[in-house]
Amino acid sequence: MFERIDHVGIAVTELEPAVSAYGERFGMGLLHREVLGEHGVEAALLSAGSSRIELLAPYGEHSVIGRFLEDRGPGMHHVAYAVEDIDAALAELRARDVELIDAEPRPGMLSSRIAFVAPTQAAGVLTELVEVAR
Amino acid sequence: MFERIDHVGIAVTELEPAVSAYGERFGMGLLHREVLGEHGVEAALLSAGSSRIELLAPYGEHSVIGRFLEDRGPGMHHVAYAVEDIDAALAELRARDVELIDAEPRPGMLSSRIAFVAPTQAAGVLTELVEVAR
Repeated sequence: MFERIDHVGIAVTELEPAVSAYGERFGMGLLHREVLGEHGVEAALLSAGSSRIELLAPYGEHSVIGRFLEDRGPGMHHVAYAVEDIDAALAELRARDVELIDAEPRPGMLSSRIAFVAPTQAAGVLTELVEVAR
Repeated sequence: MFERIDHVGIAVTELEPAVSAYGERFGMGLLHREVLGEHGVEAALLSAGSSRIELLAPYGEHSVIGRFLEDRGPGMHHVAYAVEDIDAALAELRARDVELIDAEPRPGMLSSRIAFVAPTQAAGVLTELVEVAR
């Protein structure tokens, strides 16, 4: 079902210092930056060879990342697996009675389509499926 | 420096139910199992397409995973990046004044060589370098 780990999402208090740290220390280049206003998130996608990491900082007052940081502090937020066909993957998960956060795919960064699986289904790990745009 | 995300390490309270959950729900096959007695860890490596996930359960009384679970509960524990030459990668990180947990590589699972970078260097994420055995 899963092709590879596409990216790991990392919650940070401030985006700039984290982008600099990953760039200067590990040579990870910035691929994309986006404000996801409705989720209260400012995101930066960095290249880690053929994988990526997604740095997520709070944006505005009602932020899912702000709440995460209050509860747990900075660190890993989710794991995203690449799938070839997200509709087929979600159908397969539904057939296995896997509890989904997103019953249908929604738009992700860079024209990808994404859906989240409940952490209870994956040993406490918030799990994302991503169909990367061709 | 990094070729890809090799695996994500996930702390679990018990190995069997987690191996079953990832297998039955996401079709991830078991690649390897190992008790790392000196670290108080029992590990299972599962296939996630061309990536892997590493489930880590406490083993014995003095377990780094047991302490992690007490502090934070089950969930993501570390991110591991594949490097072609771990000695060269560590030399490069030292030259950039990156704080390392392991100054020299140590043996990992399946004859790999691994080293950890301090979480303070990576926005709170415990970061592993892994040179997979050829």
